[in-house]
Parts: sequence; structure tokens; C-alpha cells
Amino acid sequence: MTPPRTPDQLHRFGYLGPRGTFTQMALDAWDAAEGREHLPFGSVDAALSALRAGDIDAAMVPIENSVEGGVSATLDSLATGEPLVVIGEVLVPITFVLCARPGMPLAEVRTVGTHSHAWAQVRGWMGRHLPDAAYVPTLSTAASAAALAQPGEVMFDAGVCAPVAASNEGLEVLAEDIGDNASAVTRFVLVARPGTLPEPTGADKTTIVLFQREDHAGGLLELLEQFAVRGVNMTRLESRPTGAAMGSYCFSIDFEGHVLDARVGETLMGLRRVCAEVRFLGSYPRADRGRPDTRPGTTDADFDHARAWLEDLRA
Amino acid sequence: MTPPRTPDQLHRFGYLGPRGTFTQMALDAWDAAEGREHLPFGSVDAALSALRAGDIDAAMVPIENSVEGGVSATLDSLATGEPLVVIGEVLVPITFVLCARPGMPLAEVRTVGTHSHAWAQVRGWMGRHLPDAAYVPTLSTAASAAALAQPGEVMFDAGVCAPVAASNEGLEVLAEDIGDNASAVTRFVLVARPGTLPEPTGADKTTIVLFQREDHAGGLLELLEQFAVRGVNMTRLESRPTGAAMGSYCFSIDFEGHVLDARVGETLMGLRRVCAEVRFLGSYPRADRGRPDTRPGTTDADFDHARAWLEDLRA
Amino acid sequence: MTPPRTPDQLHRFGYLGPRGTFTQMALDAWDAAEGREHLPFGSVDAALSALRAGDIDAAMVPIENSVEGGVSATLDSLATGEPLVVIGEVLVPITFVLCARPGMPLAEVRTVGTHSHAWAQVRGWMGRHLPDAAYVPTLSTAASAAALAQPGEVMFDAGVCAPVAASNEGLEVLAEDIGDNASAVTRFVLVARPGTLPEPTGADKTTIVLFQREDHAGGLLELLEQFAVRGVNMTRLESRPTGAAMGSYCFSIDFEGHVLDARVGETLMGLRRVCAEVRFLGSYPRADRGRPDTRPGTTDADFDHARAWLEDLRA
Amino acid sequence: MTPPRTPDQLHRFGYLGPRGTFTQMALDAWDAAEGREHLPFGSVDAALSALRAGDIDAAMVPIENSVEGGVSATLDSLATGEPLVVIGEVLVPITFVLCARPGMPLAEVRTVGTHSHAWAQVRGWMGRHLPDAAYVPTLSTAASAAALAQPGEVMFDAGVCAPVAASNEGLEVLAEDIGDNASAVTRFVLVARPGTLPEPTGADKTTIVLFQREDHAGGLLELLEQFAVRGVNMTRLESRPTGAAMGSYCFSIDFEGHVLDARVGETLMGLRRVCAEVRFLGSYPRADRGRPDTRPGTTDADFDHARAWLEDLRA
Repeated sequence: MTPPRTPDQLHRFGYLGPRGTFTQMALDAWDAAEGREHLPFGSVDAALSALRAGDIDAAMVPIENSVEGGVSATLDSLATGEPLVVIGEVLVPITFVLCARPGMPLAEVRTVGTHSHAWAQVRGWMGRHLPDAAYVPTLSTAASAAALAQPGEVMFDAGVCAPVAASNEGLEVLAEDIGDNASAVTRFVLVARPGTLPEPTGADKTTIVLFQREDHAGGLLELLEQFAVRGVNMTRLESRPTGAAMGSYCFSIDFEGHVLDARVGETLMGLRRVCAEVRFLGSYPRADRGRPDTRPGTTDADFDHARAWLEDLRA
Repeated sequence: MTPPRTPDQLHRFGYLGPRGTFTQMALDAWDAAEGREHLPFGSVDAALSALRAGDIDAAMVPIENSVEGGVSATLDSLATGEPLVVIGEVLVPITFVLCARPGMPLAEVRTVGTHSHAWAQVRGWMGRHLPDAAYVPTLSTAASAAALAQPGEVMFDAGVCAPVAASNEGLEVLAEDIGDNASAVTRFVLVARPGTLPEPTGADKTTIVLFQREDHAGGLLELLEQFAVRGVNMTRLESRPTGAAMGSYCFSIDFEGHVLDARVGETLMGLRRVCAEVRFLGSYPRADRGRPDTRPGTTDADFDHARAWLEDLRA
Repeated sequence: MTPPRTPDQLHRFGYLGPRGTFTQMALDAWDAAEGREHLPFGSVDAALSALRAGDIDAAMVPIENSVEGGVSATLDSLATGEPLVVIGEVLVPITFVLCARPGMPLAEVRTVGTHSHAWAQVRGWMGRHLPDAAYVPTLSTAASAAALAQPGEVMFDAGVCAPVAASNEGLEVLAEDIGDNASAVTRFVLVARPGTLPEPTGADKTTIVLFQREDHAGGLLELLEQFAVRGVNMTRLESRPTGAAMGSYCFSIDFEGHVLDARVGETLMGLRRVCAEVRFLGSYPRADRGRPDTRPGTTDADFDHARAWLEDLRA
Repeated sequence: MTPPRTPDQLHRFGYLGPRGTFTQMALDAWDAAEGREHLPFGSVDAALSALRAGDIDAAMVPIENSVEGGVSATLDSLATGEPLVVIGEVLVPITFVLCARPGMPLAEVRTVGTHSHAWAQVRGWMGRHLPDAAYVPTLSTAASAAALAQPGEVMFDAGVCAPVAASNEGLEVLAEDIGDNASAVTRFVLVARPGTLPEPTGADKTTIVLFQREDHAGGLLELLEQFAVRGVNMTRLESRPTGAAMGSYCFSIDFEGHVLDARVGETLMGLRRVCAEVRFLGSYPRADRGRPDTRPGTTDADFDHARAWLEDLRA
């Protein structure tokens, strides 16, 4: 199986389903997926397994929420097993609605179904408007809407989901914008098999996972110095347990720049030398098009001049 | 309301319920709670709210799992709102059983109910033994056992829970030790209102949350140098979104030593100077009784000698 | 012998003589020495020995030249033996003249006498105007003028010295301002026995000598971090051999601030912990009245707030 | 003028004369200079000027003394002007004798002539044995012996010089081994024009001069981190004034390794990026044959593996 070489050559796109989730909205926002096959999966693991098996060419999955933080299932699945790479990212503003079967008044809602992450983001609104409502966990936000849309008995009176899920299922919206944080955003990444490397655009991001040689949090300082000395800024840092023992962590990191940039290449080599393992998870254009904030002495031109100077010395 | 001054004076202990969870096991392992009142709460938030309101004197809640990582609800509730402090920690080995109503054979299990964190820890076993079983989320592992124990229809054929929950509820154990990681451990903390400060034992831990002045991950290097220069080792570091914007983080940190130790005091002052906010979440004896690994020049004696020397210079 | 407590109580001032040197000019510029006894010494060692013996109360000696660098005799004498402290500094612009006995034309000068440091600073001028002149070393610049002023045979035709020395001795000036660097400055320090500590003025400097635990230049990084983490700027750093072996160095350092400043106190304690020895050589007002450039989080007020906060935590 | 490419092709060797100095001993110890032309020069400047002009092929000059520190004339001449490179080093133990014309008893010595650096190294012995002797500066230690050997009047009764100078001149040795530090060593370097680069031996040293972008001693930390992050150890660090202003320094540095070593190349490029200027002064075999003490992750093999890994990622 020869991997596709550019994002344009991808045909089958998986995503964390079902239809009506924020993940589908993220995939809809990805231009190169327009008109291609879109396949929902029941879990991040299932989508990434299908990708590893070659059943799909790419998978859109959530990686980070501005309120709840990193998405463990995605971080952990990318950090282990057969290598995969991120080839793009999409930011989706998160807005929740409370929906119910037509005719159900807000005042009579006693039980609310939704995914636990969504529940965490509407706790404030619930405390003010439905302080006595009991929570019922569902597999996804869209699953709560789907359950209400099916005929027959249901475990809860109302659901919390994306506006699109409520309208898809023909439900009545009892309240809009019920998220506690109006600027909540979730970041999704498009994942592919290694071999697909987007071109550098000058506004790129790179994702890696670092495993330390010895399990001591102090060693993190040594890792961060590898970035600092080349002027590379991190945009996300999360520790994740390796599972080996309490206190054994790896670090999931996003930073500015592309693997083909000189300062990124030298940083990666430095990390490779001092870490037990560096897992490269891709370089890709930033969703916000933000260019790196390089200080004097750390631009690619500075690296090129320094290399030319060294080659002169060695000649 | 004058807060109790020592852990011995605490009477009412809340915990993340229901009965039969690992959290109850943690509270049972806390000697000073023996013979006192034990109150289950439906969520970490509920337990900590009751603590803040003065309804209970302390609350046992999970903070970190060796497989799944930090417990967001606990980390976030401690990082914001009315201040609380950790006054102790308990490590509980995590073992799961698959249980069902008497008479249900393993081969006929089609649906499995449990908490999503527990499900994540038994995925490997399920893939090998029940590859076609569908997952049904429940509010806790104990809730899956309780649901099976009640008469009438139930949403799933089997549950995943702690051995104690299965036996409490009179269920049949279909399989033991089904966790994918045999050495999985969850760390629980006993939380109280400020004013309770355990005595230094020489084998202590301190927990803090750091909010940076500017939201740039690079600034983390500056924070870590405050530890390094005083020889203080971190044992846990987690970034958590502040919710303000994508990429705005605070850092939840455990480190070796007690607030009354000289090297810890100077480290805290240094962090206080360079951070927008330092939230002190308590100093308490380590569950593993491990003493800090201090390098030359960073013992409390070294700090005392240096202070005496400075005072001579200034005299 | 009770040491004098303030710079005002000093009566007998030694200096590196003879009369007519730049060091005398430095002492003349020291207000508190006006009207007191001024005693020339033949060497820095002789002046500091007399000070240690109690024969004089203070000694003015050169420590650093903007062209030639540190003055080894002063640096080494302060770094070893009975402790002494710097209590003030004076900056003197260095201008040299070429002088001779009346009647000697410039074109006939074949030999030039002066101190080797002065010779180093006029090499450019000599190369252009007297390329064939031979150099004859003298004990001081003033000594070259004095030799020319005495009757009888002399080893050289012209001398290089301060303008005041040429006029003191009644010599003819053949050329003025012959120094290669028009902005050359020498820094002199007034040294006293320990016990004299000038008041902080807000524009102070502190001088120390650091001896590393192990002789590895890499350890310097650890020392510099002690300054950086408290926001203390160095203004001079010189390595000096300890004499123990090739590659065994101590570091002579000036930095901004006074030993009574909070950030300086903590820096000194940090250095004391990680060094084999820290030799304190005094805090004193800066000659240029320059105030320290403190970054946020490192002012004395920041240190005070941090301490108050810590004391609250500990209470 | 095509420069010679290997140290073997050098024919005319200059040195800091006159004959009978320690510098001549250093040149005699240099195997490749055996049987070639040896030319004494009156000063370091004169020798290096002749080298720059092409009149000689190499020059042996002192650079560092284990007691007195760096030799300013050499450091400054190498740091400025037409580029030169060090191609080798020699360590010479320093032993001084007190010599006089035959028949002069020790007890009658009233005046002693020698170079000021030598005088500094025998002050202790003089204080104990000839406390009243006056010092007379000479241009070199050998010059004091030569002056005594000439017929007629002389400015001093005895000289301090190398044993070889006393025997060359037929003088009587009044006392041997009069240096205050029995283990005193002077390090000499053999300097050539650029184009001569000794082969790496695995036990090499590199010499550079760093000029900072901004004149603040704090910036030194940034420079040292460039070494630390690649595991390169310094063996000498000296600040030297640039002459521009008081407090404006450059740093003269020796470190372990050869410019062709991967870790040295990356360090030099890093310094080139963050410095205003990096002056490369050569890579050459260490006189003591000491191999670098590389920590894990910083060997050339580690650098090669990291580069191969990066190239795979980029492919």
C-alpha cells in the first residue's frame, strides 16, 4: 500500500460520529473533503483503527477543547500503536442547545441526557434553570438527540447537543447558547497515515510526543531548553501518563513551525538526542494562519547564514 | 466558623459515591476517618461544594489515575472558587471485575455498562473476550452494579466495577482482574478548608496551581527554573485550560517538600513573583513515604547556613 | 581594633603611588578624603597590606581599565588573604602625554619609558609617530616622568604619563592625548577593612568572588542562573586562575544592587549554597549613579509581597 | 599566497624571544618544528604581525598561565585584526632561578631585575629571603639574564629567569625553584594563518572569541546555554574589554572538541546566531590528550542518529 502523498489525494474521510456532532461540522469545514466519502465512527479509537487498517484515508477527531482540555482518547491513540500524522486542524466554536420532543415545556424537564464533556460545559446554566434535573450519560451529544427522535420510551426528557443535531432530528429547541463559556472552541485534527506531509506555508504547527529517558518531572526543563535555545514557541503542552507507573509521564506538545524549517529540524534532533523516544505526529498549516513570533537569531535565514559560515570554517 | 486546626479534629467525611467505588476504598484506608461520619456525594463538584459550605469537614476525591491521567473535575474545582487545601493522599490499586445477574453466562453478554473511565481501562480485555459487546455509559462503576441489582428491566447485561461493588450488590463475577494494566493505581486526595496544615514529616508533598502572567507556553521554562535553582523536584505537572481562550493554560503541579521547608518557601516566593497567581493547595505527607532526593546545596541545612552567613554580612 | 563604621570616619588614605599617577587623581576625586592624610604606596600589595595591618584606614587602587581589562594585582589581593571590602568607586578618564626634558625634539626620541600597561595603550600612536622607538619598562607612568626630572643619565629619551605628572616634574609635553582609545577610563575602588558598609542609595553595586565546588567551567551556568532567577544584572565578570592547576578558576563579579536589597540577599544565599566559597567584597554606591534595570517580579517590593504571602500561607 | 594546508608544511617558526625564555622551551617541545628555522621576536605583537605579513609560517606565543591568568597581549591580538588560528598547544612547567654574575653572594643582592609577570610569581620567596630588594622591570625574564651577562654597569644585582637562560648566559644560580607555586604551568599556542586545520584526534580543543549583540553581562547566560544544550564543556573562559566602553566585554573561550565534530558544529552555529560576531581561532589536539567527557545524548554518534532520524521524517 503506497500512501497518498498530498492531502488532495485523500478520498475516504472518517470522523467521530454520529452525524450531528461538532466533529462532523469540523469535517464539513475542511475544503478538500468536499464531495468525498464521509464515514462516521462510534469512537476515536474506531476511526483511528480504520485509518491504520487502510479502510479510510483520513480521520477527523477532536484533540483539545478550550474549556475541558485535551481529549484523552485522541492523545493516547496517537501516542501509541502504529504511527499516524496530523495533516491539518480545524477550530469549531462550541454552542449547545437544550432540545426535547415537540410539546415538552422547559418547566417539566426532570432528566437530561448528553455526553459527559458537554454536561461539564453546561453545569452553570443547569444550576440556574434546572437545578433539580438528573443527568443521564450518553455516548455522544448527537446520541441524546437521536434517542429523543426515536419513537417509544426514552431515558431522559431533554438532550444537550449541537444546534445542527436538534434540527436534523426535528426536535424542539427549549434554550439556545446554554454553554457556560461563550467563547468555547474545540480544536479538531485531520489525521492520516505517514507519508502525507503538507507543504510549509510559513504559518505552520508541528505536533510531537516526548518520552523522557528517566521518569523525573525535573527532566522537563532539559526538554524545554531544546526549544528555547532555537527560539521555538510551544502552543500546547500536556502531560499524559504512560501507564507504566504513577508519576510516569509523556508530554504531548504542539509548537510553531514546520519539520522542514531549519530551527524546527535542529530542535527535533536535539529532542531526539535527549529523549528516550520522540514521536513525530505531523507538521501542518495553522487554522488561525498565525505566523511564528521569531526573535533575532532564530529565523530560518539566521540558521542558513550560520550554516554557510560553519561550512566556510570547515572548508 | 473557625476551621479545625489538625486532621484529627475532622468529623464528617464526604466522598465521591456511591458506596462501592474506589473512592470509598480510599476513605476506608484513611485511619483518622475511622469511626467518623462518611457521606457519599454524586459528583466531585457536589462533594467540594458541601465542603466549602461547611456541611462536611473533609472530602475524599480522585485526582490522578496512572492510566487515564488527571481527573479534570477535581483539578478544575480545586483550581477555582473558594480556596481548599489537600491534607493527605491515598493510593488505591485499581482492579476491575465483570459482573452480572446470577445465571448470565459470559458468552451471552451483548451490552456492558460502566463509567467511561473504567471502560477505557478494560478496552483490551473486551476486544479479546467480548469484541461485539456494546458500551452503555453509567454515572459511576458502582452505579452499573447497582442497576443490575435492582429488579426489572436493565439497559445492559453486565457491569464493570470494583470487586467490592459486585459483592455488595450480590452479583456474580464473570471475570476478575480485567483491567488492561495490572499495575493501575488511582491517587485520591483528602481535601479540607484552609486552616488545616499537616505537620512536616520529612516525606511531604505540596500541590499548587500556577497562572502565568502572559499566555505563552514558553514562559513555562521560567517557572521550572524557579524549582530547579532551589533543587525542588516535581512529581506531577499538568496543564489545564483556563477557559479564557484556546491556548490559555494554568499548570497544576505536585512537588516534593512542605511549605514550611526553607527550599520550598523560597521556591514559592519565586513563583509568586513571576506568576500572575499562585494558588496554594496544601502540603501533606506522601502516601509512599518517599523522602526528597536533594542534591548538594539544596538541603534545609544548606539554606540555614546560607541565611546565617548572609545575616553576618549584613550585620 | 574596632573598625570604623562609616566612610566618614576614615582618616588615613593610602593609594598606589607615586604622586602624579591616575590613582592619585582618583583619590583627589573622593570628597570624603579631602583634608585627610594621603599616603602613596609602591604597589597594590603594599597598600592593601598596610590596610590589613591597620596602618591606614582605606586604600584607593585600580581594579579595571576599559582598554586593558582587570588589574590582576588588585583582583588577586582582594580574592585571597585577610578579608577587605570595597566601599566606593571612582571612574577616571585616562589621557596620556609624551614628555621629555626641555629641548628634546620629538624627532630625536629613540627610547620611551613607561609602565607596560600604558605602553599597551599608546602602541598605535607610537607606530605612526615613533615607529623605531625602543620601549623601556618602568614601575609606573609617574616613575618615567620622575626619572626624566632627575639630573644625570637616564635610560630613555621620553616618558608616557598623565598630564599632571609631566607638569609636576616640570617636563616638556611633546604630544598630548596619545592614547589609542580616546574614551579610555580606569575604574578605581576605595577599599577598607570589613565593618564599613555604605548605606543603600538605590544605585549600588556589589562585588564578590565565587569559587566553584568542582573545577568545571560548565558549572558557571549554574552560578549565572542564581542571578537570572532573581533578576540581578552583572556589570563585570572575570575569571582568574586560583593557581591550584591549569583550568582552575574563580570568578570575580560586580553586580547591580546592595547586600541589604532583598533580591541581592536571596541571590547571595543561592550562590553560597552552590559554591565552595563566596567571598563578599562589599556593597557601595555606583560612580555613575545608574539605577538597576529590574524586570517585573524582581523589585524589592515584589520580594516583600511574596514574603508576606508566604508568611500568610504558613500561618 | 596559498596557505600551507597541514602543520607539517610549516617551515619558519617565530616565537616570543629572546632565546632562553619559556616560549623557546615551548617551541623546542614542538616536534614538527625540529630542524626548521626558529626566529625570536621582541613582543607577541611583533611575532603575530610577522605571521600576518607572511614573513613566518607559525608563531609560538604564551596564552595562559596557571598563576597569573590569560596573557592579554596574545588574547587581544588574536581577537582583532587579520584572522589567525591556533593549530597546537604546549604546556611548560614554570621554574625560576635567581641568578647573578659569578661572585655575587645572595646576602648582597639589593636590586632584582625580571619581567613583571615573573616578579609576581616569586613575591613570596622574595619576601622571605630578600625582603628589602628593590624590583627593576625588564622586557622579559631572559633579558634580565642577558643584561647581567653583558660587560659594564647593570641596573640590578640579580635576575629572575628560566634555568636555561642562566646557564646560556654563564651566570651563577643563587637559588633554584623560587616560584611561589611549585605546580605553575604556562600554556603556549602555536598560531598560523587560516587554512591550516589539524585533523580531529578525538582529544581536541577549539578556541573562539564571542562578541555579544548587546553589552550586558546577563547575555552570557544565553551564550553558555548554547554549549550546555549540546553537551560541550568549556575549559577556559575569560572576559576581555572590547575597549568600546567600560563594561563592554568579549569572551575568549576554549572548549572541548573539534570544529568538524557534529556537536561542536551545531554549537558554533548556535553561537553565530545569537552573537554579534563569533571569531573562530582554531581546533587543535589537546596537549594533555584528554578526551571530552560527553554525557548521554551528546556524542557524535547521537548527533548522527538524530540527523538520520530527521531526514527520514522529512523524506
